[in-house]
Amino acid sequence: MRVIITSQREGQQEIGAAFEAIVGSERARFDEHTRQRYARSTGLECVMPAGVLYPQTTQEVVEIVRVAGRLKVALHPISRGKNWGYGDACAACEGQVILDFSRMNAICELNLERAYVVVEPGVTQGQLAEYLATAKSGLWMDATGAGPEASLVGNILDRGFGHTRYGDHWQTCCGLEVVLADGSVIHTGFGDFENAKADMVYKYGLGPALDGLFSQSNFGVVTRAGIYLMPEPEDFCAVFVRAARDADLEPLITCLASLRLQGILQGAVHIGNDLRVISGKASYPWERTGRCVPLPDDIRAELRREHGVGVWNVATSITGPREIVAAVRKRTHRELRPFRPVFVSNRSMVHMRRLQGWLRLAGIAKRLQGKIDLASALFNTLKGIPSTGAIRGAWWRVRSVKDPTALDPLDNDAGLIWISPALPADPAHARRVLAILSPIYSKYGFDTLVTFTLITERAMICVSNISFDRTDPEDCERAKRCHADLLKSLLQEGYVPYRCGAATFEHVVKDPSPFWQLASRIKQALDPTGIISPGRYLPYGQMLRNNEEGAV
Amino acid sequence: MRVIITSQREGQQEIGAAFEAIVGSERARFDEHTRQRYARSTGLECVMPAGVLYPQTTQEVVEIVRVAGRLKVALHPISRGKNWGYGDACAACEGQVILDFSRMNAICELNLERAYVVVEPGVTQGQLAEYLATAKSGLWMDATGAGPEASLVGNILDRGFGHTRYGDHWQTCCGLEVVLADGSVIHTGFGDFENAKADMVYKYGLGPALDGLFSQSNFGVVTRAGIYLMPEPEDFCAVFVRAARDADLEPLITCLASLRLQGILQGAVHIGNDLRVISGKASYPWERTGRCVPLPDDIRAELRREHGVGVWNVATSITGPREIVAAVRKRTHRELRPFRPVFVSNRSMVHMRRLQGWLRLAGIAKRLQGKIDLASALFNTLKGIPSTGAIRGAWWRVRSVKDPTALDPLDNDAGLIWISPALPADPAHARRVLAILSPIYSKYGFDTLVTFTLITERAMICVSNISFDRTDPEDCERAKRCHADLLKSLLQEGYVPYRCGAATFEHVVKDPSPFWQLASRIKQALDPTGIISPGRYLPYGQMLRNNEEGAV
Repeated sequence: MRVIITSQREGQQEIGAAFEAIVGSERARFDEHTRQRYARSTGLECVMPAGVLYPQTTQEVVEIVRVAGRLKVALHPISRGKNWGYGDACAACEGQVILDFSRMNAICELNLERAYVVVEPGVTQGQLAEYLATAKSGLWMDATGAGPEASLVGNILDRGFGHTRYGDHWQTCCGLEVVLADGSVIHTGFGDFENAKADMVYKYGLGPALDGLFSQSNFGVVTRAGIYLMPEPEDFCAVFVRAARDADLEPLITCLASLRLQGILQGAVHIGNDLRVISGKASYPWERTGRCVPLPDDIRAELRREHGVGVWNVATSITGPREIVAAVRKRTHRELRPFRPVFVSNRSMVHMRRLQGWLRLAGIAKRLQGKIDLASALFNTLKGIPSTGAIRGAWWRVRSVKDPTALDPLDNDAGLIWISPALPADPAHARRVLAILSPIYSKYGFDTLVTFTLITERAMICVSNISFDRTDPEDCERAKRCHADLLKSLLQEGYVPYRCGAATFEHVVKDPSPFWQLASRIKQALDPTGIISPGRYLPYGQMLRNNEEGAV
Repeated sequence: MRVIITSQREGQQEIGAAFEAIVGSERARFDEHTRQRYARSTGLECVMPAGVLYPQTTQEVVEIVRVAGRLKVALHPISRGKNWGYGDACAACEGQVILDFSRMNAICELNLERAYVVVEPGVTQGQLAEYLATAKSGLWMDATGAGPEASLVGNILDRGFGHTRYGDHWQTCCGLEVVLADGSVIHTGFGDFENAKADMVYKYGLGPALDGLFSQSNFGVVTRAGIYLMPEPEDFCAVFVRAARDADLEPLITCLASLRLQGILQGAVHIGNDLRVISGKASYPWERTGRCVPLPDDIRAELRREHGVGVWNVATSITGPREIVAAVRKRTHRELRPFRPVFVSNRSMVHMRRLQGWLRLAGIAKRLQGKIDLASALFNTLKGIPSTGAIRGAWWRVRSVKDPTALDPLDNDAGLIWISPALPADPAHARRVLAILSPIYSKYGFDTLVTFTLITERAMICVSNISFDRTDPEDCERAKRCHADLLKSLLQEGYVPYRCGAATFEHVVKDPSPFWQLASRIKQALDPTGIISPGRYLPYGQMLRNNEEGAV
């Protein structure tokens, strides 16, 4: 038994016809144009799929999976394919058939009392935000920086994170519906019990908690999920810090980690460096640097001044009833006093926006206008409102940007690879990670764009990215070597990515260690033919070996 | 391939000798006395094990598992065996060999900065509490009501809960070490990566999140776990409500669920009925009722008055810096005003205890002394200090209590079966569950002892128990029928237990539904011989069928 690469295989027409019989020709695309479109990547390599299917119901997914099993065709499910920098819409390997869930995008249930929605995988951040607003739900969601077109379920299953009290997305999902490789449909948690009353409010159910199997894996196709929402808080206050010195990072992390650990700050806390913030507003200053890379220190300092950005920049928020927000704010202020934190309440944001209107009318104070713009975008993000603000950071190093207002980095040929190790919420580890990253980025002519996010009470995720120009083959080559070098050095010191695309995964997991052997045994038990996304978050070689042994 | 019942099998001596060769004769017990001791149960039936092993290291566990595989002997791991009412120390089925981890009880690591410990499964609540105090760690743990002798890991793996901000125990563990049936040792999360820095601070790791597999299951033997602790808060305030009317339950739940959902109250909130509280202080009033059961309403009302207990009784706490505790307290007071909540700060508890000392010296106000006793015990529990206060509730209906100060319900022949359905944090569901429970308890002559715990922001666990006298065969018979009736009625309406012992599980999971088929396939892949605890949280018949098919 081997995994079949359908593109290199005879009988392509038979395969196309079999899938067409399920979803119709309009929703089964095997043409060159469609395949090319899904092959596009912000990463190092494009991955050509065999075709794309657009299922609309769980039953269709069941039938597709069964046909795939019969014909030995590998499927790769995507929610919306906006997983930029982590593999985009690309299949894990060449020749897989993509299951694009964009047409399976119903919001199946909104529960106002217990504050959750049940959604299909094609539902986007923007769609849910609009739905909640239109329904006057009084509920808030959490959003990532990937903009309104990005999916909710895809991000949850990849265990991504956002900016609010519900920032750790995996924590906020409940009650998965999953199609397995044999076509059976399971419900995690209590969902298996007929008529269960707690299926969407209590995640674990009875017996083994199996949800985790379907995150960062290829064990099944998730076709429905519950997502928790927050009641709109009575009061909201954004917290910003702009730290002037690099050495401020240590006391900042110490202080913020302590506030998180004590449960005083409950939301995700983001600490971005200067270039992370600036890249969201501007492209690399090619002219000013005389086309030299990486960015020289003096110009970097000038950019900071021009954009009103610190060496380190903190954004988080406080939510709750007025008196509690006031108390938390007071305490946070006391702890952060050396860094002169700025607190922006709903009321002050109204004033700021009014001021900005006047300035705009008068055509003055452009820089102040820009600062208000940035604060306003961040303010929304901290409230879980999906924004397009962070997307342009993806083409920081693209030389000729085709569309500065694009919502898709692919439209600007952005080269983007996220490197995102997890580390303890400890300043010494943050400094060590920087000491690994920066010299390597510099060596290959790239800039260090980095955020440390205090995502739990004990852990930080460092999100950094190789930003390169995909139209420049030399840039691509340097990105490739930089990528390998970064991963090697980080792993050597025990800083493992919390998430990665297939191209990165190959560098991270090589040995058939006991954990990955266990994962492979589960894969073998659930999907012996390797129908679902072979290569995604599971050592591919290991699986092949298992299969060969299994076939003996 | 079939699961072997060792007690009915020849070659017992060979088995004993093989295990003795690993752990020595002192730690391999197959004598009648030991087997009898582990067969004891608060539940419906005693389950006789084949013997008991006391491993001291992971390596010993590996060797034991390998020998068990070779000899086809089933093993049943217990941490401390204090799982009263959910199966006690008993094996899932007759004839299994118990792995008792009481001698594998090292506290392997205490991390003060990131606030966690790494422990072996034999570590008890009392042991950790003492360790944290002695080390002047400045850290708090969470504890269940099972007292100082109960284990931490056993409760975590059964997804039990306590009383603090870290009350949902499964949330607080990280980085499991697990011995699989083939003797391989895996580490969940980042623990698989050599030298990983975030192994104990970030639960999910990279790739599929497999921790959940090892909770409420029989997929592996957990030999080590990280447990999160809370920094001792600057301020603490217990919140108590004593509601006089049964109808108060609805507005109480509405109000408390809203405070939980908004993140204002962060700790578990317990709402116990009168008998739940009274049973922690006194036994059933056999004399006063003229030996009639269940408890007549008039005597029940008298007991409430005598013990100063409400029809419904709320206990929760507020922790944090002084100003934040004050703000949360103010808000909570406003919301709960109709119920006249009582807030007990550290300072008022000192005063109360002083007052109690005087009263005791003067030999007056016994009832007030009792109330202070109760408040004091609850106060400790809300701070995560293991207490013995709740254990005596187990022998509420035992006619002749041998030792009123016992720490083990088995010493008093207590009959105890927990029935603990999960439900949405919604008063209508609580009322419906009561409407199912109470008539059935009455029908069989039992009393309704019940707690609703707001364990997450959306879900309640209803913990109720059949309390009976194991020395009375008629009582046992009624308990058995009551148990079956309760489960049938609850399940019919979709109220599924969040946790249960093997005897209850049989009633709950019967059909080979897709979820349990999936669980069985995983079991089959990881433990094809059925070495680890067959019958525990997995349909036993289903597994046998699988095995038979597998053998074809």
